[in-house]
Amino acid sequence: MAVGLGMPGRLLPVDGLRLGVAPAGIRYRERNDLLIIAAEEGTCGAAVFTRNAFCAAPVQLARKHLAMFAPRYLLVNAGNANAGTGDAGMAAARETCHILAERAGCAPEAVLPFSTGVIGEPLPVEKFPEGIACALDDLRADGWLDAARTIMTTDTLPKACSRQTTISGRKVTLTGIAKGSGMIHPNMATLLVFVGTDAGLSQTLLDRALRKAVDGSFNSITVDGDTSTNDACILLATGKSGLLIEDETSQDYATFAGLLADLCRELAQAVVRDGEGATKFVTIEIDTAYSVEEARQVAFAVAHSPLVKTALFASDPNWGRILAAVGRSGLVDLDAGRVDLEINGVRIATAGGRDPGYTEAQGQEALAQADLLIRIALARGTAKTRVWTTDLSHEYVRINADYRS
Amino acid sequence: MAVGLGMPGRLLPVDGLRLGVAPAGIRYRERNDLLIIAAEEGTCGAAVFTRNAFCAAPVQLARKHLAMFAPRYLLVNAGNANAGTGDAGMAAARETCHILAERAGCAPEAVLPFSTGVIGEPLPVEKFPEGIACALDDLRADGWLDAARTIMTTDTLPKACSRQTTISGRKVTLTGIAKGSGMIHPNMATLLVFVGTDAGLSQTLLDRALRKAVDGSFNSITVDGDTSTNDACILLATGKSGLLIEDETSQDYATFAGLLADLCRELAQAVVRDGEGATKFVTIEIDTAYSVEEARQVAFAVAHSPLVKTALFASDPNWGRILAAVGRSGLVDLDAGRVDLEINGVRIATAGGRDPGYTEAQGQEALAQADLLIRIALARGTAKTRVWTTDLSHEYVRINADYRS
Repeated sequence: MAVGLGMPGRLLPVDGLRLGVAPAGIRYRERNDLLIIAAEEGTCGAAVFTRNAFCAAPVQLARKHLAMFAPRYLLVNAGNANAGTGDAGMAAARETCHILAERAGCAPEAVLPFSTGVIGEPLPVEKFPEGIACALDDLRADGWLDAARTIMTTDTLPKACSRQTTISGRKVTLTGIAKGSGMIHPNMATLLVFVGTDAGLSQTLLDRALRKAVDGSFNSITVDGDTSTNDACILLATGKSGLLIEDETSQDYATFAGLLADLCRELAQAVVRDGEGATKFVTIEIDTAYSVEEARQVAFAVAHSPLVKTALFASDPNWGRILAAVGRSGLVDLDAGRVDLEINGVRIATAGGRDPGYTEAQGQEALAQADLLIRIALARGTAKTRVWTTDLSHEYVRINADYRS
Repeated sequence: MAVGLGMPGRLLPVDGLRLGVAPAGIRYRERNDLLIIAAEEGTCGAAVFTRNAFCAAPVQLARKHLAMFAPRYLLVNAGNANAGTGDAGMAAARETCHILAERAGCAPEAVLPFSTGVIGEPLPVEKFPEGIACALDDLRADGWLDAARTIMTTDTLPKACSRQTTISGRKVTLTGIAKGSGMIHPNMATLLVFVGTDAGLSQTLLDRALRKAVDGSFNSITVDGDTSTNDACILLATGKSGLLIEDETSQDYATFAGLLADLCRELAQAVVRDGEGATKFVTIEIDTAYSVEEARQVAFAVAHSPLVKTALFASDPNWGRILAAVGRSGLVDLDAGRVDLEINGVRIATAGGRDPGYTEAQGQEALAQADLLIRIALARGTAKTRVWTTDLSHEYVRINADYRS
């Protein structure tokens, strides 16, 4: 039921990175479920992980390894999250890193493990030796699309994209893949994102560029407000393009960071468009807020409201529900009498009440679209933000109520 | 679809209060939709109103009137919320108070207006003169059940109860009514609660007792996290029992406040049991928290999680979703490895992982019940709390997506 999402466009190889996949039989039959991304020596890594206190063993281990070593291999499995598995789960995650490190001839700490799938079931470590051998044999520079397919769980389409530009005379490439039906179902979902580039950046700038890109993309989407135990977003920079960026105030950094942010936004929106049961792709834009923080607070109050989401599913221009969500978002001293609301260019509410020129027919025409832009002006300042979400459909309840049966 | 909720038991008259209803035709046909509660002179009132910034005209006016005058009449209509109606809505609310005040011979400020129903439509003031005359003619001490029926919108059952006890030799009665399918749909719902007692209390103690009772009842329930523009809870104390409570440290106050809290809890739970599309009545108990605030933070994170709610609807003991909701609730330094989880007495998780003795069959048996008690121990302190909620069903989506059509 993906909303306006097709197969990925052409994916560009990233010099210094190779990808291999294998059908390890961890949970699925007759499909690839194990991915290895191999990075040449000298590659730098940056990562953003879930803030969920119940974070999975592989998340804990990947964070630890990344702090100790430059990453050489990412090891990803679909079908089992290795979460809620206690000490045995940590031992299993360690063991998989050792298996790969031994075959590849690197330190175990140079391997970063990632898992997505069912919570609370033991990871079948015995499936890994053969799977890893097979995926290593498969390593190739053009493996991005297969990689995107391999990490899918309830995703209906692979999600991947590339960007290329010239920075200071060097051709620079970024390619990324993502999986997740909306960072929404901790049982068998998880948002995983792997982005590679042949640009070189200092560790500080790599971290900074990734964090900023994630704030404006994966941290600005929601399907249902639930955050997985396994979410992770990794950026690998090989430096093979010959470009090295070390100055935060340089035009090179601005260009690279902008490109990365743009790529992450496309991947994040693809995750929302493939959200569980989604029939609408909804952009919520808050402007004239006092601060970006309060703009986000209002945007997420609207994005998480089941009443707003069910009205959007019904294509019902039920503006009272949107204003009520703004009203309960917790802003101090919000003057409801100054709030304006517009959907797909149709002015619905002005100064907190129905706009004099608004007709129900206009609202129905606007809401009939699959892509909706809800603009809310707070008249409190100059800050603005955008977040992306979906509606709440019968299909969402069906998917999540029937999931384990 | 109310979960374990029947018709109210016997409702006791409250000396000093009379209730009258009428079919004013504000929106509904062939049913009563206008309620007047008349209080004898000397009655004190206390109230708690919605914190939604988009609060309706009647809420603003009732708050203002209560601050100026002792209340003599509550004027309640169902079918139109008079919210999102701007200056005309305020003028309409004022006009209805004037009509009643003129007929009843009191100051307009002694009338408190309340409305529930559709947002954004003009209140048909022209229906009020005849409706008010008719409801005044109907005033009687035993009108509580009819009153509870009159204020219903999408409620499937009237909600009302009584308490009686002897305090310092005086027989004291409390009777209350409530409407709302879960303080959940700002379009045509709203939580309205009217409680009367023949006890007498100082204004300070009346306010305090009501606020405390609301915290442990109506502020501890949620169906979907949305708060109406029109929510209000009013307590009228006539003093006719001869009991006057003025000392907060007295046993009399403790007894009265306990009885009021108990009555409000029963009404609040009835609202949840009649929640839209509810098939489960769920008590979430958090204990060994560091503070009541953090206990509530965790409880509401679980109660609002669509993934938890859809799993409960499916009677699926999907404990990973519950722990994931605890993990993302935002507690600082939560040690996930110390959290325990129990449902209806079945220990499911111990120290953050599956309990060694737990079997899926036990979990399925527990989840098959319509009344569920989810206990989560955080091992961080001695504070505890309880909140009440429902599951998220197909019926919820149907009701809220189809509402205006």
